[in-house]
Amino acid sequence: MGTQTRRSVAFRRGIAGMKPRAEQAGLSASTPGARSRRLQLGLGRDWSSYPAYGAAIGGLREYWYPVMWARSLQRKPRSVRLCGENIVLHRDSEGKARGLRDRCPHRGVKLSLGKQWFPDTLSCPYHGWTFNVKSGELVAVITDGPDSPMCGHVAVQTYPVEERIGLIWVYIGERQPHPLRDQLPEELVDPPRYAVGGRIQDRNGDWRLYAENGFDEGHAKYLHRTSIWRIFKVMPTWNKIHIEKRGRWLYRVEDERHWEAEFPGLGKWTNDRWFKFKPRQRQGRFMGNTGGGKTHPYIEQQKLPGFASLSLPGVLRIAYPNFIHYEFYVPIEAGRTRYVGVMVQFKTGLPKWLFYAWYLLGIRWMFHGNFSGQDHWMVENTSAPPERLYRPDVSLLEWRRLFSGPHPFHPETVDSAPDAPDAQA
Amino acid sequence: MGTQTRRSVAFRRGIAGMKPRAEQAGLSASTPGARSRRLQLGLGRDWSSYPAYGAAIGGLREYWYPVMWARSLQRKPRSVRLCGENIVLHRDSEGKARGLRDRCPHRGVKLSLGKQWFPDTLSCPYHGWTFNVKSGELVAVITDGPDSPMCGHVAVQTYPVEERIGLIWVYIGERQPHPLRDQLPEELVDPPRYAVGGRIQDRNGDWRLYAENGFDEGHAKYLHRTSIWRIFKVMPTWNKIHIEKRGRWLYRVEDERHWEAEFPGLGKWTNDRWFKFKPRQRQGRFMGNTGGGKTHPYIEQQKLPGFASLSLPGVLRIAYPNFIHYEFYVPIEAGRTRYVGVMVQFKTGLPKWLFYAWYLLGIRWMFHGNFSGQDHWMVENTSAPPERLYRPDVSLLEWRRLFSGPHPFHPETVDSAPDAPDAQA
Amino acid sequence: MGTQTRRSVAFRRGIAGMKPRAEQAGLSASTPGARSRRLQLGLGRDWSSYPAYGAAIGGLREYWYPVMWARSLQRKPRSVRLCGENIVLHRDSEGKARGLRDRCPHRGVKLSLGKQWFPDTLSCPYHGWTFNVKSGELVAVITDGPDSPMCGHVAVQTYPVEERIGLIWVYIGERQPHPLRDQLPEELVDPPRYAVGGRIQDRNGDWRLYAENGFDEGHAKYLHRTSIWRIFKVMPTWNKIHIEKRGRWLYRVEDERHWEAEFPGLGKWTNDRWFKFKPRQRQGRFMGNTGGGKTHPYIEQQKLPGFASLSLPGVLRIAYPNFIHYEFYVPIEAGRTRYVGVMVQFKTGLPKWLFYAWYLLGIRWMFHGNFSGQDHWMVENTSAPPERLYRPDVSLLEWRRLFSGPHPFHPETVDSAPDAPDAQA
Repeated sequence: MGTQTRRSVAFRRGIAGMKPRAEQAGLSASTPGARSRRLQLGLGRDWSSYPAYGAAIGGLREYWYPVMWARSLQRKPRSVRLCGENIVLHRDSEGKARGLRDRCPHRGVKLSLGKQWFPDTLSCPYHGWTFNVKSGELVAVITDGPDSPMCGHVAVQTYPVEERIGLIWVYIGERQPHPLRDQLPEELVDPPRYAVGGRIQDRNGDWRLYAENGFDEGHAKYLHRTSIWRIFKVMPTWNKIHIEKRGRWLYRVEDERHWEAEFPGLGKWTNDRWFKFKPRQRQGRFMGNTGGGKTHPYIEQQKLPGFASLSLPGVLRIAYPNFIHYEFYVPIEAGRTRYVGVMVQFKTGLPKWLFYAWYLLGIRWMFHGNFSGQDHWMVENTSAPPERLYRPDVSLLEWRRLFSGPHPFHPETVDSAPDAPDAQA
Repeated sequence: MGTQTRRSVAFRRGIAGMKPRAEQAGLSASTPGARSRRLQLGLGRDWSSYPAYGAAIGGLREYWYPVMWARSLQRKPRSVRLCGENIVLHRDSEGKARGLRDRCPHRGVKLSLGKQWFPDTLSCPYHGWTFNVKSGELVAVITDGPDSPMCGHVAVQTYPVEERIGLIWVYIGERQPHPLRDQLPEELVDPPRYAVGGRIQDRNGDWRLYAENGFDEGHAKYLHRTSIWRIFKVMPTWNKIHIEKRGRWLYRVEDERHWEAEFPGLGKWTNDRWFKFKPRQRQGRFMGNTGGGKTHPYIEQQKLPGFASLSLPGVLRIAYPNFIHYEFYVPIEAGRTRYVGVMVQFKTGLPKWLFYAWYLLGIRWMFHGNFSGQDHWMVENTSAPPERLYRPDVSLLEWRRLFSGPHPFHPETVDSAPDAPDAQA
Repeated sequence: MGTQTRRSVAFRRGIAGMKPRAEQAGLSASTPGARSRRLQLGLGRDWSSYPAYGAAIGGLREYWYPVMWARSLQRKPRSVRLCGENIVLHRDSEGKARGLRDRCPHRGVKLSLGKQWFPDTLSCPYHGWTFNVKSGELVAVITDGPDSPMCGHVAVQTYPVEERIGLIWVYIGERQPHPLRDQLPEELVDPPRYAVGGRIQDRNGDWRLYAENGFDEGHAKYLHRTSIWRIFKVMPTWNKIHIEKRGRWLYRVEDERHWEAEFPGLGKWTNDRWFKFKPRQRQGRFMGNTGGGKTHPYIEQQKLPGFASLSLPGVLRIAYPNFIHYEFYVPIEAGRTRYVGVMVQFKTGLPKWLFYAWYLLGIRWMFHGNFSGQDHWMVENTSAPPERLYRPDVSLLEWRRLFSGPHPFHPETVDSAPDAPDAQA
């Protein structure tokens, strides 16, 4: 039975009539056979069709995650939860951010309830067990005297911690961490001067579904049509897309855009209203309907093949002409996600301050508040699987495929990825 | 070992000394053997003695249930939960009430969060999947364009919905529904003109225990003695009853009534006070202690053999001289019940409006509020089984027996009722 | 392999370097072998090393427990929960406190929701089942008439109840209770005239961990250094202790006391401040740092070998020079504890009233409030096991050993104590 036949079976089931056209110009590494097998799974009753994806319910390990604003971390210890682990963060005597497991090995009390008595240490509030924050070693037990025989025999786990683009990043995993710069969106590794605004919020809902939602073409036009962020801009009624894979990023690329549709037997539907603007560009690959304007040279220079892109471990990038918006879906634990929404503009001087003003006055509550709150509402109300997928869900299927591929920063580590057979098809 | 012997064993255990006298004039279909076996189960440690009853914890299927007031259902979708299923109700373009499973098959979002764009449709708020509310079929996907290949391949379950006596009724089950008029209390099928007042309230507690409580003779006199509804009317201290079965209804029939009792070694107990009235009737089958007055001809004409009657799937009828009160114990899910309390008076013109006034001024808060709230309090605090039953609990045992009999409206469907052996004894 | 060798293994693991010196003057019945085996368990991953201790999660049975203030118990029934059992308490017609299982056998409703109609009875609010509070027997069923055949065939469990030192005590267990006076702290059995102040509070947290915390030497100096109770009194930095067992009590005895410590590579730590007083005594066994003053003759006469002592089933005694403070950690159920904190002073006349004034103005909120609240905070935040124990935790290990020994008041009952093998080592 040839590939074509198997694919047509898929269409009659999960994604009826879908015509995948992603394998363009060698952008995707997937073979047609692997793709069609995946498509057959469109009618999913549970995650058993995606074992690596299903296993990632509590978060992916061996990655860096942004967990809090750098400016809000000081000497006072702060507790964060990441992939189901409690971590205490604070700054040592040189101001460097440090991370330890947030649990005193003595009786299980959180070290984040304690304080820093001596430089580069953290003491448990209960009995004064005192740990070096660089090594994690127990260096003193205040209530057991200078000759405490525990010292040197007990240690807590340390976590690699970095600061970039105004955020504290923590590496979670068992391996030697890859450099954070490898994992940052490329344009943020050595960027020109920039300004950052953003919002961090803990939300109910699966981090994987937040990523699916963020990259999903289907809902954007319909769900967000009522958002204040788009009040003066027409949203299309429907469009056709395909997904391109370039390096570790998936790009959503638009092939067709329709501003209205006549549904047989029902009537016409459009988001067009007399007070809404349409973008000047009408077709093709462009940077969102933002009312036009010139694209910033640094953003232009990135030559991003699509408006929206997604990569592991749950990083969404939306490239507007004058700024880039990022969403990091940070797994707190199964069913709970820290939303880290960040907007970056590559400007200095007065434009930078104008951007800050615009962020605080408008973007913050319209985009990171009202608009993103609609996503929040839907992800909290999603109860998949079971699910029935449709054409725009190609974005979601490609995202799920990433989980069974090699780790983008530790490719040699994938020894027993449960979905590996797919990749050999 | 004869039936008599087995029965006497029962008396020494669960219902010590109870003398069942229900088998009168062929009213009951139960055989003495089945009855005595049941009575032996009076000392119940769990529901294993009543498998069909135990299995009904989440509600009985293949029945109609009243779920909301008809006047509060409009175009805007409303979500109700019934027997553990989420159902979206709304009115189509002709004003007819419609019911669908409240779950979009795409990603599991509730359709009740959506809206009606085209006549007789309901659209999911997430991606605009649009279902015909008459057939349940997917007729458009707004974000996938007019040629969406999903249409015609996906449907959601529809639920039969009817309107009667001011309520929206939903049929839940897999079979072709029996006509709602078959299930309505007979006097409400083609009633003369009438007025209705009532209250709907979601309550914690098992729907079966609400039914047991509603039909229970024992607690009425004692628990409700402090209710405002009975403040000027003496409640008896104790009485003797038996249960008669006529058609699908169980009737509680009073044999003796005692206004006071002298308890050996303890003293006298009575609810009689100088400011309370006793009914003129002192003995026999009558329509509650309502202070007398002439019985309404239509109620008289029903020739109900008892004041209180109960039928599957949890419908209580209390016949007062001038109105009939109904309680529907609608299973939301295990441990949660929608109380639908309705009072019907068969009057027109001024008496009808006087009834409405009396309902709003008095009945609503005294009877459907304070009085019914006492039942609510007790059912929430009941933790049976284990249980020890006593003489008045014959009402409860007969109610439990109904679960193992044939379905009153689909008698042929009972293929594997777990309690069937009882009926053959 | 000799005892010494096994002990040294223990030191390298759980309690590294600990030098047990408890076996003094025959105070302890434990053999060195048993002790060293126990110490090897210092590195505990779960309670499996202490089966009798682990099994006691819901509370120890066959003991008396103080559950409420005597003055707050009147005719009105009160419900308490003890070792997972619901008990209704009230006073009978002679004012004697009585306890019954708080569950009507009929339908499981709490008898504490009912009332007392006849002397020495309690009636269920639902159907008027009426129990004699002395025998627990069903003596009347109000709704079933004087000839109710249930009477004499049903009874609820009674609980032995006593009143001492202003508290209501309940015995929970299956055996004939030992006299409460056997279990009271000895000095409270026939005390001279005294005054009592105290606080009862339900708290989250394991009752065993509250006992461990109460007897724990390690945290006292460090955690409580910030308590208002100790604001003008220096807390030591560290000390060395051993535990002595005398009869059923464990005593914490101080061997060394250090007011400051120089931690290698880190610096000096002390709680000493210019506004804090040190006690005049500088070394040895004394009664807490209370600023000195003469010890009360009755307290002196007890010849208590240590400031703090602990006994089953979770009774802590802290002997100050002028009063004794007791904490009873009463198990409500697994993970929930009733804290009963009581302070007793053996004075009469004006000093008694001065004590009451001082209790209400100061002790109540400083000691039973702020100070004890710090313990509450830590026990709620403890998540052991797993655990790593250190030198001062010898107190905790000796406490856990009590669980596998014979019952102090029913020594013959220990037929199958899971930890028994330890005692034979």
